[in-house]
Amino acid sequence: MTEQFGARLTAVIEARGRLCVGIDPHPYLLDAWGLGDDAAGLRDFGLRVVDAARGVAGVVKPQVAFFERHGSAGYAALEEILRAARAAGLLVIADAKRGDVGSSVEAYGQAWLTPGSPLEADAMTISAFQGVGSIAAPLELAARSGKGVFVLAATSNPEAAAIQTAIIGSGPRSGVRVAAGIVSDVMHWNRRDGHESDRVGSAGVVLGATVDFAAYGIDTDEIGRGQALPVLAPGFGHQGAGFYELEARYGAAASHTLVSASRSILAAGPRGIGAAIAAHAAEVAA
Amino acid sequence: MTEQFGARLTAVIEARGRLCVGIDPHPYLLDAWGLGDDAAGLRDFGLRVVDAARGVAGVVKPQVAFFERHGSAGYAALEEILRAARAAGLLVIADAKRGDVGSSVEAYGQAWLTPGSPLEADAMTISAFQGVGSIAAPLELAARSGKGVFVLAATSNPEAAAIQTAIIGSGPRSGVRVAAGIVSDVMHWNRRDGHESDRVGSAGVVLGATVDFAAYGIDTDEIGRGQALPVLAPGFGHQGAGFYELEARYGAAASHTLVSASRSILAAGPRGIGAAIAAHAAEVAA
Repeated sequence: MTEQFGARLTAVIEARGRLCVGIDPHPYLLDAWGLGDDAAGLRDFGLRVVDAARGVAGVVKPQVAFFERHGSAGYAALEEILRAARAAGLLVIADAKRGDVGSSVEAYGQAWLTPGSPLEADAMTISAFQGVGSIAAPLELAARSGKGVFVLAATSNPEAAAIQTAIIGSGPRSGVRVAAGIVSDVMHWNRRDGHESDRVGSAGVVLGATVDFAAYGIDTDEIGRGQALPVLAPGFGHQGAGFYELEARYGAAASHTLVSASRSILAAGPRGIGAAIAAHAAEVAA
Repeated sequence: MTEQFGARLTAVIEARGRLCVGIDPHPYLLDAWGLGDDAAGLRDFGLRVVDAARGVAGVVKPQVAFFERHGSAGYAALEEILRAARAAGLLVIADAKRGDVGSSVEAYGQAWLTPGSPLEADAMTISAFQGVGSIAAPLELAARSGKGVFVLAATSNPEAAAIQTAIIGSGPRSGVRVAAGIVSDVMHWNRRDGHESDRVGSAGVVLGATVDFAAYGIDTDEIGRGQALPVLAPGFGHQGAGFYELEARYGAAASHTLVSASRSILAAGPRGIGAAIAAHAAEVAA
């Protein structure tokens, strides 16, 4: 039987900790690194991050938008980076925030989560604006292939609050806030038939570190109790939260919370990045 | 000054009507068309649809997920299809449903809406799960380049209702349902400084034809009054709504509503598709 993503994630965290290194080739960073704003620059940037993360961090997260910006050539660079990262033993989360319905969202799942596909990653981020029910196909595909999905729930940007704290008025999550409803739906999925006793779920959520979880109706202790829910946590470093706040903010969920850091690491440049990753990993572990 | 998307859309509708032909290379359709489930199959499929739509319909809408499924090679096929469609005088909406924040969502906008970029389209679909404020960069980029954006508001799948009808509890849209808040935000953007007198807005929304708009707090007569709001309408044909219902369902908004049809056209196969597009265009115009 295929090893489930929750178990793979746990092993990575035990071996290398909870730091997730963003691969975000912003145009200004490409320039600062002495690279061109083109597919070759993207490739060199990403391979350098992978090389620096190897053996020091456990997880990398390429931001797909910066590759899409360069069209098919950008995607070819991303394919090479994904292959190199997985060959280096890193767990790779494609930060794609894809969402759609039916066979379209299934196709997005196939793009990123099918073993042997050109864009194969270990997990992807997904947006459930069309309902958690709409993303059943990629959730099922992920489970079959030992892959993971992180569903956006409470993101770290302030403009998101209005929608993500809105109160659901119909269906099984009636009376609950949108973000909390998504968290419950994903936890429910993780405890489906045959997976009630998994120690860690195979689908996770995105919960930004700058969010007031109580105001979103989310109890981080509850989501860490019993079967743990994997969390991907942007909002540290450049965006405002301190790494020392990880346990205080995420409560019992902290043990399976991946701390995403991008610009605060990437700003160190191609020569300083190895030391920056090690320093961040130590801070997250402290 | 660059011609705004609202004016371009109006001209296309006046010349060719409101039918929007989906370019959705589902694996089962590729098979039915005698094409391989690979980049060459995608390319042949898309170019055939473009050729059949030329001069008969005004708008085509490639579903990006089916191209992403084949990685960089799929994107290379899509680039060729986008170029061919624009060269054929068709208005091209990239159905990408992208969403993110800050420089990431800006990069998605640049990918699809920058003149001369490899994936240049005339408009793209965007998801605002992270708030309409989070997509300011692509909205501004679109306006500068005469491009359009269609923001998901009330989609046609039933699982979307819980989130899209949830009631916002904070900010300027407090008390309003999520979908209606997005519609208001996009209308507000269209009426920004210097664009109060545009006859048609340059940003639009996605409103599915199977949706009970009143239950979502959306008044389709209001959105068609004064400055018209462009609407992209999935849910016709295969998904359930009849074309004859267009005016009844969309009220005053119907004049700038693009009727999206995919499977009901594409099922006609490579030889029947020209006639199918013409028949659909006539039905929409009736």
